[in-house]
Amino acid sequence: MAVRVGILGATGAVGQRFIQLLDDHPTFELAALTASEESAGKTYADAAKWRVNVPIPEDVAEMEVGPTTPEAIPEDVDLLFSSLPSGVATEVEPEFLHEGYVVSSNSSNDRMAPDVPLTIPEVNPDHLDLIEVQRDERGWDGALVKNPNCSTITMVPTLAALDEAFDLESVRVSTLQAVSGAGYSGVTSMEIIDNAIPHIGGEENKMETESRKLLGEFDGVDVNLHGMDVAASCNRIPTIDGHLENVFAETAEEATAEDAAEAMRSYEGIDLHSAPEQLIHVFEDPVRPQPRLDRERGDGMQISAGGVQETGTGIKYNCLAHNTIRGAAGASLLNGELLVEEGWV
Amino acid sequence: MAVRVGILGATGAVGQRFIQLLDDHPTFELAALTASEESAGKTYADAAKWRVNVPIPEDVAEMEVGPTTPEAIPEDVDLLFSSLPSGVATEVEPEFLHEGYVVSSNSSNDRMAPDVPLTIPEVNPDHLDLIEVQRDERGWDGALVKNPNCSTITMVPTLAALDEAFDLESVRVSTLQAVSGAGYSGVTSMEIIDNAIPHIGGEENKMETESRKLLGEFDGVDVNLHGMDVAASCNRIPTIDGHLENVFAETAEEATAEDAAEAMRSYEGIDLHSAPEQLIHVFEDPVRPQPRLDRERGDGMQISAGGVQETGTGIKYNCLAHNTIRGAAGASLLNGELLVEEGWV
Amino acid sequence: MAVRVGILGATGAVGQRFIQLLDDHPTFELAALTASEESAGKTYADAAKWRVNVPIPEDVAEMEVGPTTPEAIPEDVDLLFSSLPSGVATEVEPEFLHEGYVVSSNSSNDRMAPDVPLTIPEVNPDHLDLIEVQRDERGWDGALVKNPNCSTITMVPTLAALDEAFDLESVRVSTLQAVSGAGYSGVTSMEIIDNAIPHIGGEENKMETESRKLLGEFDGVDVNLHGMDVAASCNRIPTIDGHLENVFAETAEEATAEDAAEAMRSYEGIDLHSAPEQLIHVFEDPVRPQPRLDRERGDGMQISAGGVQETGTGIKYNCLAHNTIRGAAGASLLNGELLVEEGWV
Amino acid sequence: MAVRVGILGATGAVGQRFIQLLDDHPTFELAALTASEESAGKTYADAAKWRVNVPIPEDVAEMEVGPTTPEAIPEDVDLLFSSLPSGVATEVEPEFLHEGYVVSSNSSNDRMAPDVPLTIPEVNPDHLDLIEVQRDERGWDGALVKNPNCSTITMVPTLAALDEAFDLESVRVSTLQAVSGAGYSGVTSMEIIDNAIPHIGGEENKMETESRKLLGEFDGVDVNLHGMDVAASCNRIPTIDGHLENVFAETAEEATAEDAAEAMRSYEGIDLHSAPEQLIHVFEDPVRPQPRLDRERGDGMQISAGGVQETGTGIKYNCLAHNTIRGAAGASLLNGELLVEEGWV
Repeated sequence: MAVRVGILGATGAVGQRFIQLLDDHPTFELAALTASEESAGKTYADAAKWRVNVPIPEDVAEMEVGPTTPEAIPEDVDLLFSSLPSGVATEVEPEFLHEGYVVSSNSSNDRMAPDVPLTIPEVNPDHLDLIEVQRDERGWDGALVKNPNCSTITMVPTLAALDEAFDLESVRVSTLQAVSGAGYSGVTSMEIIDNAIPHIGGEENKMETESRKLLGEFDGVDVNLHGMDVAASCNRIPTIDGHLENVFAETAEEATAEDAAEAMRSYEGIDLHSAPEQLIHVFEDPVRPQPRLDRERGDGMQISAGGVQETGTGIKYNCLAHNTIRGAAGASLLNGELLVEEGWV
Repeated sequence: MAVRVGILGATGAVGQRFIQLLDDHPTFELAALTASEESAGKTYADAAKWRVNVPIPEDVAEMEVGPTTPEAIPEDVDLLFSSLPSGVATEVEPEFLHEGYVVSSNSSNDRMAPDVPLTIPEVNPDHLDLIEVQRDERGWDGALVKNPNCSTITMVPTLAALDEAFDLESVRVSTLQAVSGAGYSGVTSMEIIDNAIPHIGGEENKMETESRKLLGEFDGVDVNLHGMDVAASCNRIPTIDGHLENVFAETAEEATAEDAAEAMRSYEGIDLHSAPEQLIHVFEDPVRPQPRLDRERGDGMQISAGGVQETGTGIKYNCLAHNTIRGAAGASLLNGELLVEEGWV
Repeated sequence: MAVRVGILGATGAVGQRFIQLLDDHPTFELAALTASEESAGKTYADAAKWRVNVPIPEDVAEMEVGPTTPEAIPEDVDLLFSSLPSGVATEVEPEFLHEGYVVSSNSSNDRMAPDVPLTIPEVNPDHLDLIEVQRDERGWDGALVKNPNCSTITMVPTLAALDEAFDLESVRVSTLQAVSGAGYSGVTSMEIIDNAIPHIGGEENKMETESRKLLGEFDGVDVNLHGMDVAASCNRIPTIDGHLENVFAETAEEATAEDAAEAMRSYEGIDLHSAPEQLIHVFEDPVRPQPRLDRERGDGMQISAGGVQETGTGIKYNCLAHNTIRGAAGASLLNGELLVEEGWV
Repeated sequence: MAVRVGILGATGAVGQRFIQLLDDHPTFELAALTASEESAGKTYADAAKWRVNVPIPEDVAEMEVGPTTPEAIPEDVDLLFSSLPSGVATEVEPEFLHEGYVVSSNSSNDRMAPDVPLTIPEVNPDHLDLIEVQRDERGWDGALVKNPNCSTITMVPTLAALDEAFDLESVRVSTLQAVSGAGYSGVTSMEIIDNAIPHIGGEENKMETESRKLLGEFDGVDVNLHGMDVAASCNRIPTIDGHLENVFAETAEEATAEDAAEAMRSYEGIDLHSAPEQLIHVFEDPVRPQPRLDRERGDGMQISAGGVQETGTGIKYNCLAHNTIRGAAGASLLNGELLVEEGWV
């Protein structure tokens, strides 16, 4: 039976990915699109400057875009995906939660709030139960679930695999991030052609804190942050899609390169429509993964890793994910599928 | 009084930089150019596919290129710069040394040989005295001096500053390297447009070993490698020139971000023609240094740093240098100036 | 019933596209792969440096690659696709033709030979009958059919539409071509990052001659070249796939912009598996087509056009096609489908 | 004796180029900087986000930025350079002209006004006398002189050479334009990486009209537009600086390729400080000029050409210029030098 869904902030870069991913989805049926006031009342084709490299699904092109208010959502919609700018989301998401909507949100606000589940279905599905705490504290009928930042989500599945096998103590990570992560107008061409930018505002902090929440233990009341020490340096480079990351990890149990690769390879996935069969693909060839060649693996939902080697005191490796699919729209979508599977919708 | 110099391997990308940098040099006078057999006998303009963005100096354009043999070098030439491919250099450099030439070489062979000085004039000029050991062991009249790899030289001045002030214990470094570091044909366009490559063969090992030799202590007989633990991940990105690096360092003495920045800023330079007035420029703005904007600082010879911050257990920062100037031709040239200054030529 | 096919030169960039396109083809069954001597005997996975952004089809990965000789082709294979370098193809293609194979070739040799059909199925399918002439003249049992160069094929469908409606007299065309058109190693990164190259050897001549053969009239014996005057300037730019072209055309009959756009839009396609439903998509938005956004239209087989406007004396417009699909492997494949349809296989 | 000059709109991309070019100018002394209200009162270093790849001249960094009003200009300033956005310039430039200032403007407003000289010093210096007409008509004490658009100025010197020698009848031109031509934020990275855009709003019309005014004859009262027929297609590509253009020209007198090249090579320059010794450099090598390799020729003020060939009915060739130097700030500066030389300042 179809679950009717809506998209808050449907015209932006992540919103467009939601529409692409929902096309032909077996259980989700797109029933509502919202955007800013100036887009409200237009058809989606008119409101969105569509830039995905496949045409807009024809039925979506003709859908009317509504304002981002609970009143604009048809009554029979039960699940909302949010790709609102975080400033807007902070204001607006609570209105939908008061009205009883379940919101799977990619917006960065409230990710570290103690009563908001920050979830990757394959890594910490049990954190969803924090919804009970959330409802108690906020008096909402709905539920707010967040997925992590695109740079965080790229590395966390590999960290989860290592932590499970060897207990992580410290992580140093450098990122090579694609421009799409900043939204359509986030990085100008003059900033990035023949160049790289060694800082992305707020990004380092997100990686350092969200990763510890994702790997934290939920004791029924609180998520206790993982004790590992994480430091990140975030770089923007001239790629369109796909974040590549270099990780240096120290573990309590000694890990050989081969053990570490095997831990990643065998880390268990989840049986949901948008989840890849294997969560982490580990390349033997040290020049892989590469953004342009590997970001589409598993329809953009698989994590790739490679270059696993021992350092003097730990291991180092590289990982990659498609930042606007696994790192944004696909992440929220997968959380939505988990919410349905677990009966929250 | 002019020192007459020659360039071994003058037609390649680094060779072209040598020619650009020697144009108008106050003391070095270009007197010999060598290349492979097929170029020998041609004028330089015919032999080299010139790709620097200023025209070939007119007098050099008409010079005849000779084969890479000692007989092809005029008698009055006393200093040679080498930018031969390392496979060729391994074979050929010794011939010049037997004939008594002083060779300042950018080629990667023999950099870690115990009796070969690996030198950055501002960092370890005293290592030049290893030439005495070299002459004793090899029976050469000449002298072979190497400069480090371009990715090593970008970070080592900053590490030297930190080591002097706080004693380095461990270094984790990720590089974002320009394509020119691989030579003119080293990276194809299909490999790198909209992409990044997370591995550069041999480069990680160079960074991990050369840095420890450069910061090692010379006791009059041997260079004792520095005891710090270094691990590197090397990435190629779509930039033309300028290597950017993210460094995570742990020190024995506690260093605040401000102390670390100050240690870099005040690290002493050297008074040689091609040396920048200030060795390390430290930006306050965390989005700097950037390859396209900052690689030309100090005519390509200054190191830039920025983003200095404390991590839980150490500091992190970014650094940048022009890889074919400070990281190659300019490095050899500066070593040549030091060799003259110290009386080895 | 399946037609068993082989690929000559299967490991290169175009060869890889053939394999991608033949995966799941409804009537063609891949039965033979050839490459150079050094690859012969290896599995395809070992012989090819696979760089398409989807994994190698698993059954193809394990196929053995043979040498490029007729003996290496299983007897029951009837149709061969050729993506050999043209120098090799000149030597080797005739051997297969003597043995009776039908060869649909992307290689540039012999395209202008009077007895070799140069064919785009939607434009000049009748030229296939030149095979009769070819067999008479050469004494072959097989048949050699060529598709045009990638830059030619991008514009010719639009020219055919205009010629049909208004009679073409002169064409001036500038191309902005992707690096993949030069093969994997054809353009180095140092040549093209932050740059453009205003000349591609041989390309201009191909556009100027092949276009006139494609639009020429076949009188049963000869193809009489179209009388239009064509001049081309070919540029390489930093894009991976997709050739964009600016066309200035003068016609005998006066054409308004709207008439010209309509002539393109309504130009008839062909009913073959790999053919797009509509041959030419004409954008209203003048900023389209764009390589990254539009090269995948119609699975890479549709031609896009846009910016149709009147000049003082004619019209101008832009067109685009995926150069390694519609412009190479897909072009040969479509010719193969036509050969089967018309009973030549 | 120094001429004291000011820059209107000094903080933008072209404004920054003005400052770079005025540093060490032998006769112009920078005495005033203006910008928008929000920048007024700040030092230049604080007001401008400096992005040129050499540091801000130290004395300029400390200069105070004023509002863009005549009152903010010191009395002893006699020559103003304008790089205001054209919407602002339309409003504001007349205020300065009423106050008697001579303004050499790069802004696109009023370029085609009958009483405004549109000038390239080497091409149509006599058009400056239109200032008399302008003063009569407008009652200004000052004078407004414009330089053409960056894409126009790249080709017009080559057209002037051909027209002088062979009489131009028709021009078809395709441009490959750098992103800096759209200003710092004009083109987003997502629009242009691995892509090209086949339309630049207004640009084609500028090329088609400005070129005819520049080559037009001034009869003492009016500039009569040149009768040639010009059609342009303008493309944006992923280069930072340097516009490359493919020109197809038809001439009344027959021109061989060699004659055409010679006409360009020998076209006379002008003896002003910022003018290159030779106006047009013509390459023999058909792969040149290229943006990254050739845009800096003549300190960014020389025009490069190459690939001169005969077509069936005319000639074709390529040309290139640095769009923010010869095509913007350098163009206005050179007009300023001409204004001084001719006694208008």
